[in-house]
Amino acid sequence: MPQPELIADDRITQAHGFTLWFTGLSGSGKSTLAAAVSAELRGRGVPVEVLDGDEVRQNLSKGLGFSREDRDTNIRRIGYVAKLLTRNGVAVISAAISPYRAIRDEVREDIGAFMEVYVKASLDECIRRDTKGLYRRALAGEIPQFTGVSDPYEEPVSPELVIDTEREQVAESAARVIDRLLELGHLRSPGDA
Amino acid sequence: MPQPELIADDRITQAHGFTLWFTGLSGSGKSTLAAAVSAELRGRGVPVEVLDGDEVRQNLSKGLGFSREDRDTNIRRIGYVAKLLTRNGVAVISAAISPYRAIRDEVREDIGAFMEVYVKASLDECIRRDTKGLYRRALAGEIPQFTGVSDPYEEPVSPELVIDTEREQVAESAARVIDRLLELGHLRSPGDA
Repeated sequence: MPQPELIADDRITQAHGFTLWFTGLSGSGKSTLAAAVSAELRGRGVPVEVLDGDEVRQNLSKGLGFSREDRDTNIRRIGYVAKLLTRNGVAVISAAISPYRAIRDEVREDIGAFMEVYVKASLDECIRRDTKGLYRRALAGEIPQFTGVSDPYEEPVSPELVIDTEREQVAESAARVIDRLLELGHLRSPGDA
Repeated sequence: MPQPELIADDRITQAHGFTLWFTGLSGSGKSTLAAAVSAELRGRGVPVEVLDGDEVRQNLSKGLGFSREDRDTNIRRIGYVAKLLTRNGVAVISAAISPYRAIRDEVREDIGAFMEVYVKASLDECIRRDTKGLYRRALAGEIPQFTGVSDPYEEPVSPELVIDTEREQVAESAARVIDRLLELGHLRSPGDA
């Protein structure tokens, strides 16, 4: 398990701005992982902004619903803000469900320095966790268009990383994200040429 | 006229991220001034993002209209993006009409490093210029809720700077903006302590 060593290396620096795009079901662990990764990055002096799904809906997309069109509009707005921050050297972490593949590919194209992380947990496990009590209400028919219950979730086909939050601890997952950022050249370690 | 000397001083550097908030009627010259100031700043290596009214409406506020509530929502979104960029060291220029005083004061409060520039031209002059052909249509009753014609514009009470675009050339105006940024400590010149 090489991850703890990576995390311990505080000589890691940022190569340029980038966007870490977390996608996954509600309750899959996106916000928890975003908190862990942003703490790791900040600890290395990397400027970080977390665009959390709920917060961004509040600030950029109040009034939008959960139709495919409205979801796509919401994701495009996150993508626009992520692009502005990324090209100014910020490490952006988007932690919105972003259930549709096509729009994720669109923002990937638009942003450039982009790493997609599939934050994976089975629907059964997300229902068991039910962190926000939303699945209970969705299953009771009280919330229409709820991803995984009454609305689709399209798994990424070839994300740069898959994090299985049913099998991994969050510290281990955060270390794997940092590791992959290094591999892709978004972060630099002292050993790099 | 000390401005040309200031502009010529390429040793000016950035002290921190800040937001330059341009407000004024449609056609008052906000976008023209934003282009001139952003060129000056970029020439000094300052990272700049211009949040132009039309572009931002397209990217963040499609579907919103021009009621006071929708205008306020649009301005809050620009303010949110400006805040994220500003706290990451970017010089942000907002060039939206932003006709209401209260919401301008709200984003000022939220952003912190903020300088309000009233880009001033009389309604008659804006109608004469009619850069986008919108006044003609608004005066013909084809565009409802058009600022200055059928919707209010609240002049700033104490902006950090007033630029009278009927009396000044754009190069002179840009120099005055840079000058004021220096005075307020958002930019630094080699003579600073």
